[in-house]
Amino acid sequence: MPETIISTLRNTVPLVHCMTNYVTVNDCANALLAIGGSPVMADDAGEVEEITSISTALVLNIGTLNQRTIESMLLAGKKANELGKPVVFDPVGAGASRLRTETALRFLREIRFAAIRGNASEVAVLATGQGETRGVDASDSADLALRTAQEFSKKTGAVVAITGATDIITNGEKTALVQNGVPQMGKITGTGCMLSAISGAFIACGNAFETTTAAVAVMGICGERAYERAKSLGTGSMRTFLIDELSCMSDEILAKGARISYG
Amino acid sequence: MPETIISTLRNTVPLVHCMTNYVTVNDCANALLAIGGSPVMADDAGEVEEITSISTALVLNIGTLNQRTIESMLLAGKKANELGKPVVFDPVGAGASRLRTETALRFLREIRFAAIRGNASEVAVLATGQGETRGVDASDSADLALRTAQEFSKKTGAVVAITGATDIITNGEKTALVQNGVPQMGKITGTGCMLSAISGAFIACGNAFETTTAAVAVMGICGERAYERAKSLGTGSMRTFLIDELSCMSDEILAKGARISYG
Amino acid sequence: MPETIISTLRNTVPLVHCMTNYVTVNDCANALLAIGGSPVMADDAGEVEEITSISTALVLNIGTLNQRTIESMLLAGKKANELGKPVVFDPVGAGASRLRTETALRFLREIRFAAIRGNASEVAVLATGQGETRGVDASDSADLALRTAQEFSKKTGAVVAITGATDIITNGEKTALVQNGVPQMGKITGTGCMLSAISGAFIACGNAFETTTAAVAVMGICGERAYERAKSLGTGSMRTFLIDELSCMSDEILAKGARISYG
Repeated sequence: MPETIISTLRNTVPLVHCMTNYVTVNDCANALLAIGGSPVMADDAGEVEEITSISTALVLNIGTLNQRTIESMLLAGKKANELGKPVVFDPVGAGASRLRTETALRFLREIRFAAIRGNASEVAVLATGQGETRGVDASDSADLALRTAQEFSKKTGAVVAITGATDIITNGEKTALVQNGVPQMGKITGTGCMLSAISGAFIACGNAFETTTAAVAVMGICGERAYERAKSLGTGSMRTFLIDELSCMSDEILAKGARISYG
Repeated sequence: MPETIISTLRNTVPLVHCMTNYVTVNDCANALLAIGGSPVMADDAGEVEEITSISTALVLNIGTLNQRTIESMLLAGKKANELGKPVVFDPVGAGASRLRTETALRFLREIRFAAIRGNASEVAVLATGQGETRGVDASDSADLALRTAQEFSKKTGAVVAITGATDIITNGEKTALVQNGVPQMGKITGTGCMLSAISGAFIACGNAFETTTAAVAVMGICGERAYERAKSLGTGSMRTFLIDELSCMSDEILAKGARISYG
Repeated sequence: MPETIISTLRNTVPLVHCMTNYVTVNDCANALLAIGGSPVMADDAGEVEEITSISTALVLNIGTLNQRTIESMLLAGKKANELGKPVVFDPVGAGASRLRTETALRFLREIRFAAIRGNASEVAVLATGQGETRGVDASDSADLALRTAQEFSKKTGAVVAITGATDIITNGEKTALVQNGVPQMGKITGTGCMLSAISGAFIACGNAFETTTAAVAVMGICGERAYERAKSLGTGSMRTFLIDELSCMSDEILAKGARISYG
């Protein structure tokens, strides 16, 4: 993991074009600002290519996809590919509806992603290329998720990050396992979306595998620190503190807090 | 009111499909997570029926309705009816425009609701079935609201909740009056929307009248507790603490805090 | 600056119709409530004219514009003009895409604005009437921004507010320079949008130049106070405290805190 990734990001201030859902879009914007990036949200087909052109990275999140924004996302994704800008994909809810699954699979066919981040179920759906959620059995989930991520990465050429109790990040060759984070992050909406959004800023600062691993560790550490402050208060405070901790993140905190093993 | 409603809800983790406005959607998602449910937001006509099918309840909120989402809401509502899943309706702003009033009246004709929650003015507009806001005079508002709620409940078959200084919940036969809450809740956007959203989770856990009454009391108690913590700070903190208190809610806090009379 | 502007606003409770972006819309609603106004968000072409008709002021913000809402904004703006209600314009991102620039210029041709608030770059783009961002050189930016604002105000008849290190407010004749605020406000999304939103409430309470100046000072003072409380915590807390401080604002705090010079 790059030792100076946080200071590099803050010196670079990457502009990240986020095409994301309206549930957590404010959190994504504040998370990006907190970590040192700059967010721009735009989703009309009449401008997304221009906005992607002036941005450093593009993040596509299908959390509240609709027919209008699907087409816009395709335009932006193809433009980013054409210009060599990294694209991060968050296939929120893939497997939950045919529209989500088919849209995600279409994006995989038509856009080349630098990184794909989802939970085990979402990634499994896309990796098998089928329009149904494959149940991931608890007993074999860790191993299965690992193999799924590696195969899916080789197939897509993208760094694949599966977040869960243990986060898996792989480029098909190298794999990192991140043990940061707390289960209580699941009690706040948007921790996954925020991670995908800041991944757009991280990935603009270096090697996709290393920077995505750093982004995952950063979000996990911030979750731990936010929970520590909020545990006697509640999840509203934890949400606020999560942004606080992103804004307080430093290379030192990351180096000390990251629990990463490579396998 | 069911004595173990909070623990039941937390053990059940009902998945609530919210089709709601983009102003308070994040608050609705965090409120649902905080109380122990699980939110899913989806509004494209191409997927809402499937999302409703995998959900435990559906919440329709017309706070920022538009032509696209009106049709989606109708599809989702009919599918929920077909599958016997409870549908909660929040007719935000009924009476403020013909579009809102007519859409709300159309929903009432085409969808069978388990619960309808609004303020006195919104419910009065729908109860009279007319496209104009009927002024509710302060001097007779309590009695009028009560009668309106009871008649409207009988007409629609839905539990009707009118929230205000005193909240009224009725199934046409039984009526509960809830004295919880503080006026300062009106200084935060979304307290009504959040109540409607969590009502979707509550109503999945038992009798519609009893669980809706519990949801109304829970939101009022959380408002009181949040205000107590925030009163020297301001409304931004109060908003955060409201989610905190939802996440700290328990059967004990509800039993001790609820001020409900039945009439 | 009117000495009792805050109490006047709180006694008036102006209803402000906001047609704004989905990134910061919740912040705009909470900011309006906190300062003493009342927000209503509606963007469907089928109702915006009615909603504008019952409102005291209209705020148009193109932060996440799309083809559907552009047409709605034009309808609402023209209706507001017809009824003599003040319209505030926030040309977010003008210059960043042709769609934004052309939409903003179209709005300027078809709608008469009471106030226009943007950063130096956005206003420069509109003032020159050209579809490209004119770089504002750091060495001459203060003077250039001042002249640009004055000329643009004369041309449009609107009070023009350019916010930055020093905020400039002008009606073409009189000019106010406001030194309130802290740079850290730029680390929270929506401080500009919130200022535009509350300007709609202020402008409903008196002379457009004076009330817009007051709104700018209020937001700056609240930013200073929020930063003072949040500086050891982070930007998540600062966002919460900004709303807190708006809700705690008073004529006294404004009079004591405002750093305004007239030039």
